[in-house]
Amino acid sequence: MNPESSLARIRVVLCMPSHPGNIGACARAMKTMGISDLRMVAPHAFPHPKAVARASGAIGVLNDAKVSATLDDALRGAVLAVGFTARRRELAAPLAAPREAAAEVVSTTRFGDVALVFGNERSGLDNESLARCQLLVTIPTDASYGSLNLAAAVQVICYELRLAAQSPVVTEAHPQGAATLDEIEHMLAHFERAMIASGFLDPLAPRRLMARLRRMFGRIRLEKEEVAILRGMLASLEAKVD
Amino acid sequence: MNPESSLARIRVVLCMPSHPGNIGACARAMKTMGISDLRMVAPHAFPHPKAVARASGAIGVLNDAKVSATLDDALRGAVLAVGFTARRRELAAPLAAPREAAAEVVSTTRFGDVALVFGNERSGLDNESLARCQLLVTIPTDASYGSLNLAAAVQVICYELRLAAQSPVVTEAHPQGAATLDEIEHMLAHFERAMIASGFLDPLAPRRLMARLRRMFGRIRLEKEEVAILRGMLASLEAKVD
Repeated sequence: MNPESSLARIRVVLCMPSHPGNIGACARAMKTMGISDLRMVAPHAFPHPKAVARASGAIGVLNDAKVSATLDDALRGAVLAVGFTARRRELAAPLAAPREAAAEVVSTTRFGDVALVFGNERSGLDNESLARCQLLVTIPTDASYGSLNLAAAVQVICYELRLAAQSPVVTEAHPQGAATLDEIEHMLAHFERAMIASGFLDPLAPRRLMARLRRMFGRIRLEKEEVAILRGMLASLEAKVD
Repeated sequence: MNPESSLARIRVVLCMPSHPGNIGACARAMKTMGISDLRMVAPHAFPHPKAVARASGAIGVLNDAKVSATLDDALRGAVLAVGFTARRRELAAPLAAPREAAAEVVSTTRFGDVALVFGNERSGLDNESLARCQLLVTIPTDASYGSLNLAAAVQVICYELRLAAQSPVVTEAHPQGAATLDEIEHMLAHFERAMIASGFLDPLAPRRLMARLRRMFGRIRLEKEEVAILRGMLASLEAKVD
C-alpha cells in the first residue's frame, strides 16, 4: 500500500470542538501531512469565518468536512478508533505513545478506515467516547504543563502518521475482512439483548457487564466472519430462550 | 545529562514573527514539551494581548521572552544554530529531517546552548539568517501543501526534542570546549580583515569568499582552542603584512 492510499484511509474526528479557529487549524495541520478526511461531532460553531481564516490554504478540507450528531455516526464504516487523552485514568483500552500508535494505524489501514478521535478543548473525551476506542494514545508532555492545543496535538499525530506511512512497519498479518466498528456495536447490542432475555444480565443491576464485553472485544480485532458466528450463536440461543 | 537539563539548553528564536497570536501559540507548544527559552528578533507586535490569549497557561514563557534587534544578538553564547526552512534551495548547510536533527541537538546540549531559528510566517528565513545556521531542517509535508503554521512547526520540533532528550542517542565524543557562534563570527571577521589586508580579498569583488569560508567552518563544530589557533595565525600574518 502506498503512503497516499494509507493516509487517505485515516479520518480525524473532533468531538464537540469549542473554538472554530481550532477547527481551521486542525484542517491545516492535517493537510500539511496529506490527511484530508475531517469529521466533527456536534461542533459548537461551524461553519465559521474563524475556521476559514485559520485553515489558511486548507479550505478544501473544511469544505469537505462532515458534521454528525453522534460519535457512532462519525465512526461508521471504520475498523479501528483511536482515542487521544491527556489524562491517566482507569483505562478502557491499552495506552500507546504516538509513534507506536502511528505504526499500528498505518498497518490497520490495509483493512479499512481508521478514526482518530479527539475530545473537546477543555474536557477531553468523555468516558462513553473513550469506550468506543480500541486504542488510547497520550502525547508525552512536560509534567508541569501538559495542555497541548487541539490543533497542535493533531499536528503531532498527523506528522507521525506521515512518517509511519512512508516507512511502514511490517506487522503480523491482520485479519482479512476486519469487522467495522458499527458491526461490532450491533453485535454488542445483540449480546445485551440475549443476556437480558436469558436473565444473565439484569438491566436494573448491570454490574459493568457490557463495559467488560466491550473492552474484551476491543482488544481482539474481530473479523467479519467472527462477528457473524457470534451473532448466529446468540440468535440460536435466543430462539431457545423464547 | 538528564532530559530537563538538556531541554533547558535549547532556545527557540522567532525571526520577525508577524502575528502575535503565533508567538503565544509557540510559547504554549514549547512549554508542553519542557522548553522555555523564547527569543524574538524584531517581532511585528509584542507584547500583545493576542499572544497572551494563545499562550494559555504558558504565560511565564512569554514574560521571560527576550527581544533583540538582530539574529546575532539572539544567538549569542549558543554553540549551534539550527534553521528551519520549507523550501529547497541552494543549501548553505546540510539538510536534516526533524528526528535526526533532534538527536544532534540533544547531543550538542552537552557542550552548550542550541538555538532553533524560525523565520517569518510568510517569507521564512532570509539567506543571511540561513547562513548563520550550521544545520538546516525541513519538516516533511505533503507535496501539494507544505504550509505549516509557525506554532505547529515549533510543536513538532519540540515534541521530537522531548523524545530525543528522553532517549539520547550515544554519539561520538563532541569536542570539549565548543566555540560559541559569536566567537566564530569574530574569527570570520578576523579572516576577512586579514584577507583584505593581504590583498587576497578585494572588497569590491569579494567572489563569495566569505560565504565559502562560513560554510566550511559550519560543517565542523569548532573548539575554542581551534578558534584561538586560527586567530593567532591570522594575527601573526597581519603583523607580517603591516
